[in-house]
Amino acid sequence: MKLYTIWRSQAAFRVRIALNLKGLAHEDIAINLDRGDQFKPEYKAQNPQAVVPTLYDGDAKLFQSVAILEYLEEKYPHPPILPKDLLARAWVRGFAFVNAADSHPLIVPRIRNYLTNVLNVDEPGRTAWIQHWLGSGLQAMEDLLAEKNPTGKFCHGDSPTIADICLVTQVTPAQLFKTDTAAYPRVMRIYDHCMTIAPFAEAHPRRQPDFAEH
Amino acid sequence: MKLYTIWRSQAAFRVRIALNLKGLAHEDIAINLDRGDQFKPEYKAQNPQAVVPTLYDGDAKLFQSVAILEYLEEKYPHPPILPKDLLARAWVRGFAFVNAADSHPLIVPRIRNYLTNVLNVDEPGRTAWIQHWLGSGLQAMEDLLAEKNPTGKFCHGDSPTIADICLVTQVTPAQLFKTDTAAYPRVMRIYDHCMTIAPFAEAHPRRQPDFAEH
Repeated sequence: MKLYTIWRSQAAFRVRIALNLKGLAHEDIAINLDRGDQFKPEYKAQNPQAVVPTLYDGDAKLFQSVAILEYLEEKYPHPPILPKDLLARAWVRGFAFVNAADSHPLIVPRIRNYLTNVLNVDEPGRTAWIQHWLGSGLQAMEDLLAEKNPTGKFCHGDSPTIADICLVTQVTPAQLFKTDTAAYPRVMRIYDHCMTIAPFAEAHPRRQPDFAEH
Repeated sequence: MKLYTIWRSQAAFRVRIALNLKGLAHEDIAINLDRGDQFKPEYKAQNPQAVVPTLYDGDAKLFQSVAILEYLEEKYPHPPILPKDLLARAWVRGFAFVNAADSHPLIVPRIRNYLTNVLNVDEPGRTAWIQHWLGSGLQAMEDLLAEKNPTGKFCHGDSPTIADICLVTQVTPAQLFKTDTAAYPRVMRIYDHCMTIAPFAEAHPRRQPDFAEH
């Protein structure tokens, strides 16, 4: 498989974790968002939103990280990243969207650029914006975990699911933007456990080749 | 089923369409977001994010609209709202997330409140923000449809899928906030067709009982 990616993208990070969990080899092609690689005609022709990731499974082109996770689960079901029980699947997906829909899209480069260039928000104001939305997503995850009270190692049971993938991609930018995570002990317990496991740890933004170059 | 909803929520609109398409009866309970009903302890205990919709299927509680659509598809598969082919499913989901992840979360009340109360953005500035993000989602949908060039009545084939549900919930707020839709003819052809069909038309925000009261 071929993954168009950038080290710091939380959406690409999700896909890397899933590929690693399922043991699927992938060649990574770095898209330098700071240099504007995403707007070059040859990339925009592949991804009209000019965002990462884009994944190729052979000739088949895939876009939008959660749609890619669902595809990987359907095409390569072992090991699974969704539980079997329908209500558990719904909870896992609902939990994941706290990150993938309600938090992460609020802090991506195009939003930060709009805050800077159109609304004239200064750097402390942008950081406060990012910390606010990452914190409110972390709080929602903490509340959901308090309600469910999982006794296993992960959000649901003892093997990782899409919920854990999206928990990790909520915590990593929170750490990058120095959001205090002490108020979210249930979230952090699971995050810390995920990071002891190679498929998560090796997918971390800091472990990507293009991180070293930035 | 019991659906906690507000007439203007695009997320609740998605769930209503899916319930209607699948012929599932539901009792709607209006949550007045302007009055702050979502922050009342009895609702927040059900939905820690204090957002709509929440759906009860018997005693089973469901949250996050796209997770609810996936649950309904798995539990009540007929008629389907996802294609069978794996790549088509991935495209449909990817298209849906242009709305459900990359557009809609940017314009919900909590964002508008932050723009107003923290960043002191005035009403024309907020409207420009909303129009900008709805427009860029519509453009991405138009580009995806141009690339795929569907010849059927809907985004994929001749029966509605999650892609059409999320296309509709991209267009409806664009119309409400007077975004020009003329530049998106492929999107609007499908929107107009959806609105000729009862499960979509009857789910429209203007057709909800609490719309009349607002």
